[in-house]
Amino acid sequence: MENIKKIVGIEAAKFVKDGMIVGLGTGSTAAFFVEELGRRVAQENLQITGVTTSSVTSEQAKRLGIALKDIDDVAYIDLTVDGADEVDLDLNGIKGGGAALLMEKIVATYSKDYIWIADDSKMVKHLGAFPLPVEVVTFGSGQVFRLFETLGFNPRLRVDANDVAVVTDMGNYIIDLHMKEIKEPQRLAKLLDETVGVVEHGLFNDMVKTVIVGSADGNVKIITNNL
Amino acid sequence: MENIKKIVGIEAAKFVKDGMIVGLGTGSTAAFFVEELGRRVAQENLQITGVTTSSVTSEQAKRLGIALKDIDDVAYIDLTVDGADEVDLDLNGIKGGGAALLMEKIVATYSKDYIWIADDSKMVKHLGAFPLPVEVVTFGSGQVFRLFETLGFNPRLRVDANDVAVVTDMGNYIIDLHMKEIKEPQRLAKLLDETVGVVEHGLFNDMVKTVIVGSADGNVKIITNNL
Repeated sequence: MENIKKIVGIEAAKFVKDGMIVGLGTGSTAAFFVEELGRRVAQENLQITGVTTSSVTSEQAKRLGIALKDIDDVAYIDLTVDGADEVDLDLNGIKGGGAALLMEKIVATYSKDYIWIADDSKMVKHLGAFPLPVEVVTFGSGQVFRLFETLGFNPRLRVDANDVAVVTDMGNYIIDLHMKEIKEPQRLAKLLDETVGVVEHGLFNDMVKTVIVGSADGNVKIITNNL
Repeated sequence: MENIKKIVGIEAAKFVKDGMIVGLGTGSTAAFFVEELGRRVAQENLQITGVTTSSVTSEQAKRLGIALKDIDDVAYIDLTVDGADEVDLDLNGIKGGGAALLMEKIVATYSKDYIWIADDSKMVKHLGAFPLPVEVVTFGSGQVFRLFETLGFNPRLRVDANDVAVVTDMGNYIIDLHMKEIKEPQRLAKLLDETVGVVEHGLFNDMVKTVIVGSADGNVKIITNNL
């Protein structure tokens, strides 16, 4: 599995050209992409500016010597590469397993191009087997939780190993919705967008045009959505 | 003007009954409501529990001896009373002049009943002369700002007297949209709800059923929406 992640990470790095402002994703697969970028910066003198999607990725990029800028100090981002937790046949996806969905979505939204990298176990017919992360304001999060219960969304507050509520880089909580199957991701996204107390959710619908998928046999497939 | 605010504040307090869990609004008008509640608690032995909508209101309520609970420690709120910056003929409104819109909206959303108090200068045909506050995540706020510029929303980052960006109780920035006239508040709300980086906005559409309006001559009108 680690090997597949590495292969797609390296593959995605080939899309990065000199002079680009590059959005750097978060998570175990995106980490291989960032590592390969670091290698190209060091060994091939690749000239890029990174914009990161989490404090974890910021640390990694700094360690690798990748020049960073704050998202608000660039006019736009040329290309963002990130992992995904689930991707359906229309290239809608679920992200946020690593609790960085808000920053990831902001960076992706203001990127001209956006690529996901994944191993083929992430490709699904329908989203929802992976719990859908929803980032909520701490104030009133108990009320939002109860609303999700009433709606039958099977919510669970994300906690760490010590059973303490996880706080995101932006100071919010994560409620994971264990829905099993999300039949209408667009409809659910709209409902969550309009729910007071929800900052953002892990449904990334119609955001990505290219997904680089690796499989155990070493094959790499590039899926493009021409919608 | 102070006198009108006091009159509607006292009027609204009459809706509060023994045993209620009461949402306490924020701002110069709501402060009179909270003050009158404090008086009734002290002088009439009114038994209530308050849920506040800002750190400022929490301080005021504590000073007045009103028992408080966190919003997440109550099952629901019976009644919330708050001010409004503008109210249109359909009782849609703009709130957030005091930068507390997020907590105010969360408390209002989880309240069984919701009342606004205002002086009649706040009653308008169309919303938008009052700048519409939008609470945004600090990360990427410059990108959101540029998006609002592109959309012609005439955004301004809210700053304090020292020209430092105002940070809300929830750790976000406020961007005020100087739109002059908002022709379709429902449509604009939807757009803002779906904008990545926006936590919440000051359009409170279809949330209130009763508005208590005072005028300079001492008259008090209770407007009810029977939609």
